[in-house]
Amino acid sequence: MPQIQPNLSSPSSELGAPLKSLIARAEEALVRSLPPADTAPVELHQAMRYAVLGGGKRLRPLLVYAAGFALGEIGPRLDAPAVAVELIHAYSLVHDDLPAMDDDAMRRGRPTCHIVFGEAMAILAGDALQALAFELLAHELDSGVSPASCVEMLRVLGRACGADGMAGGQALDLAAVGRKLTLEELEFMHACKTGALIRAAVQLGGLAAGASPDQLAALDRYAHAVGLAFQVRDDILDVEGESAVLGKTAGKDAAADKPTFPSIIGMEASREHLDRLTGIALDAIAPFGERAAPLAELARYAAARLR
Amino acid sequence: MPQIQPNLSSPSSELGAPLKSLIARAEEALVRSLPPADTAPVELHQAMRYAVLGGGKRLRPLLVYAAGFALGEIGPRLDAPAVAVELIHAYSLVHDDLPAMDDDAMRRGRPTCHIVFGEAMAILAGDALQALAFELLAHELDSGVSPASCVEMLRVLGRACGADGMAGGQALDLAAVGRKLTLEELEFMHACKTGALIRAAVQLGGLAAGASPDQLAALDRYAHAVGLAFQVRDDILDVEGESAVLGKTAGKDAAADKPTFPSIIGMEASREHLDRLTGIALDAIAPFGERAAPLAELARYAAARLR
Repeated sequence: MPQIQPNLSSPSSELGAPLKSLIARAEEALVRSLPPADTAPVELHQAMRYAVLGGGKRLRPLLVYAAGFALGEIGPRLDAPAVAVELIHAYSLVHDDLPAMDDDAMRRGRPTCHIVFGEAMAILAGDALQALAFELLAHELDSGVSPASCVEMLRVLGRACGADGMAGGQALDLAAVGRKLTLEELEFMHACKTGALIRAAVQLGGLAAGASPDQLAALDRYAHAVGLAFQVRDDILDVEGESAVLGKTAGKDAAADKPTFPSIIGMEASREHLDRLTGIALDAIAPFGERAAPLAELARYAAARLR
Repeated sequence: MPQIQPNLSSPSSELGAPLKSLIARAEEALVRSLPPADTAPVELHQAMRYAVLGGGKRLRPLLVYAAGFALGEIGPRLDAPAVAVELIHAYSLVHDDLPAMDDDAMRRGRPTCHIVFGEAMAILAGDALQALAFELLAHELDSGVSPASCVEMLRVLGRACGADGMAGGQALDLAAVGRKLTLEELEFMHACKTGALIRAAVQLGGLAAGASPDQLAALDRYAHAVGLAFQVRDDILDVEGESAVLGKTAGKDAAADKPTFPSIIGMEASREHLDRLTGIALDAIAPFGERAAPLAELARYAAARLR
């Protein structure tokens, strides 16, 4: 395990070396957890690996690790939840990219899963990734987490993925295209669609580290703000960003007539909103002191990232 | 809870009244567990309810109850696993029916989920049902199951749903269309595609009832045989059955050039295979004595059902 010396002097649009080394840790854990590409059903396994191992910011695993660190936990029991949330995130992207959903042909600068493996295999790969996430989390006992905490982790993940969380948010998003949303409706949609899994990542890190109810509540205030900030930044980047840097098509939301923060409250208010959310996140984790530095760095990164 | 007096004199192509009353119990538990049709996201909730509450044999919940009864457990702790396996089964049907998969417009005598709600909502409803299954099972603690057993149940369900189970079997099935399979390949495909969840149902019933490792092993021998018998019967019905009774198109497998037991080993050998499998299933549960009568009835039903 690398020592975490958060790089607070680095520009917050990029992660410092310690968090980058955690990306490598997440990457290794993901590779270990996915089924081998050369065993049957080969095509399904390949599609699952393609969907997960194709880069990505690994923000959710980083949040698991950073939340665990805030509680003094740095051991292997953070790996299963880090992998689980990323498998869920990857599956959601595969399904969101399908022709019947957002119909995206490119993701992270590569053809999307259904373009490479066909729609049927992409649907199945997503389904199998979701199942694998829960299965791996149920193996968390092997790294010394108590059965009661393990069950709670599974409950948190299940809720975050379902109709009250990610899947529900995607349904709200589909229903919102071409409609005029209020700021509250937009925030609720994002709180479900991306916020629920981000909050789950932080909760899982906390639960794996044995956080108290008060600590879990503080972590959740942080995660709620970071999740929204991440989305506000996404919307700003969609207006300002360059496709080559984003790895996806800039201006796509506007073209699809999707409601965004800039389209509802304007660009300047969106930036102010972002600052406010970052402040809320940093306040929430103040009680954790020095150990919360990685969480703080991630909060600043979520608000300032360039892709 | 109704007393179970298994109706051994009833024709085995139909379930006796006691098992039918358990279908009603499963139905009530399903209705309680699904999100309400009138809360947001309304369309997603409606699609989930449509997918699950549209009839069906409820074989998997019945197997949960019957396995629990074999161990002397009849209480509410069987309800969450009964619901969980049926939610998984329902989600798999929704995704299997999609145009990119089997492209079925009718199921259980009604238009399929994507015909009614559109493809995007059908994909999301399936995704949300899978998440809900795990979430509900993680609430099993509330009915008094130990945390360790609860984690084991989640692990069993996760494994049954993933690349080594149901999703993997569906991938093998897609790859098999138009190919000549050996009997072993066909059995492996079905062992994954439908067998894994049937075995999980029986294991979950056993685990909820506190079964010993030996008892779980006996239950699994039973479930493995019943799962295969169920599929052999399915293939025979596809040749012999009437669409009106089946609620789906008879002869569809042959028309799609899908490998089946009759197409590989012939009709007579398929029937003999069915008898052999039923014998194996009944032998496996003999040690449970009288209490295994519901399991026995389900084994006979799986092999003799007319739809």
